[in-house]
Amino acid sequence: MKKYLAEIDVMPKKEILDPQGKAVTGSMKNLGLSEIQNIRIGKHISLEIEADSEATASAKVDEACKNLLANLIMESYSFKLEEVA
Amino acid sequence: MKKYLAEIDVMPKKEILDPQGKAVTGSMKNLGLSEIQNIRIGKHISLEIEADSEATASAKVDEACKNLLANLIMESYSFKLEEVA
Repeated sequence: MKKYLAEIDVMPKKEILDPQGKAVTGSMKNLGLSEIQNIRIGKHISLEIEADSEATASAKVDEACKNLLANLIMESYSFKLEEVA
Repeated sequence: MKKYLAEIDVMPKKEILDPQGKAVTGSMKNLGLSEIQNIRIGKHISLEIEADSEATASAKVDEACKNLLANLIMESYSFKLEEVA
Protein backbone atom coordinates (compact mmCIF):
# COMPACT_ATOMS: atom_id res chain seq x y z
CA MET A 1 0.00 0.00 0.00
CA LYS A 2 1.25 3.44 -0.83
CA LYS A 3 0.27 6.62 0.92
CA TYR A 4 -0.89 9.67 -0.96
CA LEU A 5 -1.58 13.22 0.10
CA ALA A 6 -4.56 14.88 -1.57
CA GLU A 7 -5.03 18.64 -1.71
CA ILE A 8 -8.62 19.47 -2.60
CA ASP A 9 -10.20 22.82 -3.45
CA VAL A 10 -13.98 23.14 -3.16
CA MET A 11 -15.23 26.43 -4.58
CA PRO A 12 -18.66 28.00 -5.12
CA LYS A 13 -19.58 27.69 -8.81
CA LYS A 14 -18.93 30.78 -10.96
CA GLU A 15 -22.59 31.36 -11.69
CA ILE A 16 -23.46 31.31 -7.97
CA LEU A 17 -23.24 34.45 -5.86
CA ASP A 18 -20.65 34.20 -3.08
CA PRO A 19 -21.85 36.58 -0.34
CA GLN A 20 -18.87 35.89 1.94
CA GLY A 21 -16.46 36.73 -0.87
CA LYS A 22 -18.45 39.88 -1.72
CA ALA A 23 -18.30 41.02 1.91
CA VAL A 24 -14.55 40.45 2.13
CA THR A 25 -14.03 42.29 -1.18
CA GLY A 26 -15.76 45.26 0.47
CA SER A 27 -13.52 45.02 3.53
CA MET A 28 -10.41 45.20 1.35
CA LYS A 29 -11.32 48.80 0.50
CA ASN A 30 -11.36 49.71 4.19
CA LEU A 31 -7.89 48.18 4.52
CA GLY A 32 -6.60 50.37 1.67
CA LEU A 33 -6.39 47.40 -0.68
CA SER A 34 -8.94 48.49 -3.28
CA GLU A 35 -6.84 46.91 -6.07
CA ILE A 36 -8.05 43.53 -4.81
CA GLN A 37 -11.27 42.44 -6.54
CA ASN A 38 -13.49 39.44 -7.17
CA ILE A 39 -12.73 37.51 -4.01
CA ARG A 40 -14.30 34.08 -3.85
CA ILE A 41 -14.08 31.92 -0.77
CA GLY A 42 -14.30 28.16 -0.67
CA LYS A 43 -12.79 25.27 1.25
CA HIS A 44 -9.37 23.74 1.11
CA ILE A 45 -9.16 20.16 2.32
CA SER A 46 -6.04 18.08 2.80
CA LEU A 47 -6.19 14.38 3.53
CA GLU A 48 -4.10 11.22 3.48
CA ILE A 49 -5.17 8.12 1.66
CA GLU A 50 -3.73 4.62 1.41
CA ALA A 51 -4.11 2.89 -1.93
CA ASP A 52 -2.38 0.44 -4.26
CA SER A 53 -1.95 2.96 -7.05
CA GLU A 54 -2.45 6.60 -7.84
CA ALA A 55 -5.43 5.71 -10.03
CA THR A 56 -7.19 3.96 -7.12
CA ALA A 57 -6.38 6.83 -4.77
CA SER A 58 -7.72 9.31 -7.30
CA ALA A 59 -10.98 7.35 -7.68
CA LYS A 60 -11.45 7.21 -3.89
CA VAL A 61 -10.81 10.93 -3.44
CA ASP A 62 -13.23 11.63 -6.26
CA GLU A 63 -15.86 9.50 -4.49
CA ALA A 64 -15.23 11.34 -1.19
CA CYS A 65 -15.63 14.71 -2.91
CA LYS A 66 -18.85 13.70 -4.69
CA ASN A 67 -20.45 12.08 -1.64
CA LEU A 68 -19.33 14.23 1.25
CA LEU A 69 -16.90 17.08 0.71
CA ALA A 70 -18.58 19.07 -2.05
CA ASN A 71 -22.19 20.01 -2.71
CA LEU A 72 -22.21 19.57 -6.49
CA ILE A 73 -25.30 21.73 -6.93
CA MET A 74 -23.48 24.80 -5.69
CA GLU A 75 -19.81 23.86 -5.63
CA SER A 76 -17.15 22.48 -7.91
CA TYR A 77 -13.98 20.73 -6.81
CA SER A 78 -10.50 19.96 -8.02
CA PHE A 79 -7.65 18.10 -6.42
CA LYS A 80 -4.02 17.13 -6.71
CA LEU A 81 -2.49 13.88 -5.48
CA GLU A 82 1.08 13.42 -4.37
CA GLU A 83 2.78 10.28 -3.13
CA VAL A 84 4.29 10.54 0.34
CA ALA A 85 6.86 8.35 2.07
CA MET B 1 -1.10 47.84 -14.63
CA LYS B 2 -1.13 44.09 -14.89
CA LYS B 3 -3.74 41.81 -13.48
CA TYR B 4 -2.86 38.81 -11.35
CA LEU B 5 -4.90 35.94 -10.02
CA ALA B 6 -4.01 34.80 -6.51
CA GLU B 7 -4.95 31.37 -5.15
CA ILE B 8 -4.63 31.36 -1.37
CA ASP B 9 -4.85 28.44 1.06
CA VAL B 10 -5.55 29.22 4.72
CA MET B 11 -5.19 26.14 6.92
CA PRO B 12 -5.39 25.46 10.66
CA LYS B 13 -1.86 25.12 12.04
CA LYS B 14 -0.57 21.55 12.49
CA GLU B 15 -0.34 21.83 16.27
CA ILE B 16 -3.96 22.98 16.50
CA LEU B 17 -6.82 20.50 16.69
CA ASP B 18 -9.19 20.70 13.71
CA PRO B 19 -12.56 19.42 14.99
CA GLN B 20 -14.28 19.82 11.61
CA GLY B 21 -11.59 17.73 9.95
CA LYS B 22 -11.81 15.12 12.71
CA ALA B 23 -15.58 14.87 12.28
CA VAL B 24 -15.29 14.45 8.52
CA THR B 25 -12.57 11.81 8.97
CA GLY B 26 -15.10 9.89 11.09
CA SER B 27 -17.78 10.24 8.40
CA MET B 28 -15.45 8.72 5.80
CA LYS B 29 -15.68 5.40 7.64
CA ASN B 30 -19.47 5.43 7.33
CA LEU B 31 -19.07 6.02 3.61
CA GLY B 32 -16.81 2.96 3.33
CA LEU B 33 -13.73 5.11 2.79
CA SER B 34 -11.76 4.17 5.90
CA GLU B 35 -8.48 4.41 3.94
CA ILE B 36 -8.88 8.20 4.11
CA GLN B 37 -7.23 9.67 7.20
CA ASN B 38 -6.00 12.91 8.72
CA ILE B 39 -8.45 15.25 7.05
CA ARG B 40 -7.83 18.92 7.73
CA ILE B 41 -10.21 21.60 6.52
CA GLY B 42 -9.32 25.20 5.82
CA LYS B 43 -10.23 27.94 3.39
CA HIS B 44 -9.39 28.42 -0.23
CA ILE B 45 -9.59 32.00 -1.45
CA SER B 46 -9.21 33.22 -5.01
CA LEU B 47 -8.91 36.91 -5.85
CA GLU B 48 -7.84 39.28 -8.60
CA ILE B 49 -5.34 42.04 -8.01
CA GLU B 50 -4.04 44.86 -10.19
CA ALA B 51 -0.41 45.80 -9.71
CA ASP B 52 2.66 47.06 -11.60
CA SER B 53 4.67 43.95 -10.98
CA GLU B 54 4.42 40.49 -9.52
CA ALA B 55 6.50 41.60 -6.52
CA THR B 56 4.01 44.39 -5.70
CA ALA B 57 1.06 42.05 -6.16
CA SER B 58 2.70 39.48 -3.89
CA ALA B 59 3.31 42.09 -1.17
CA LYS B 60 -0.33 43.24 -1.34
CA VAL B 61 -1.72 39.71 -1.15
CA ASP B 62 0.59 39.03 1.78
CA GLU B 63 -0.77 42.14 3.51
CA ALA B 64 -4.36 41.05 2.85
CA CYS B 65 -3.66 37.59 4.29
CA LYS B 66 -1.98 38.96 7.40
CA ASN B 67 -4.59 41.63 8.09
CA LEU B 68 -7.86 40.03 7.08
CA LEU B 69 -7.89 36.58 5.50
CA ALA B 70 -5.92 34.51 8.02
CA ASN B 71 -5.85 34.45 11.79
CA LEU B 72 -2.12 33.95 12.29
CA ILE B 73 -2.55 32.65 15.82
CA MET B 74 -4.43 29.59 14.61
CA GLU B 75 -3.91 29.51 10.86
CA SER B 76 -1.09 29.55 8.35
CA TYR B 77 -1.40 30.60 4.73
CA SER B 78 0.28 30.10 1.40
CA PHE B 79 -0.52 31.48 -2.04
CA LYS B 80 0.37 31.33 -5.71
CA LEU B 81 0.19 34.25 -8.11
CA GLU B 82 -0.43 33.98 -11.82
CA GLU B 83 -0.62 36.77 -14.39
CA VAL B 84 -3.89 36.93 -16.32
CA ALA B 85 -4.71 38.72 -19.56
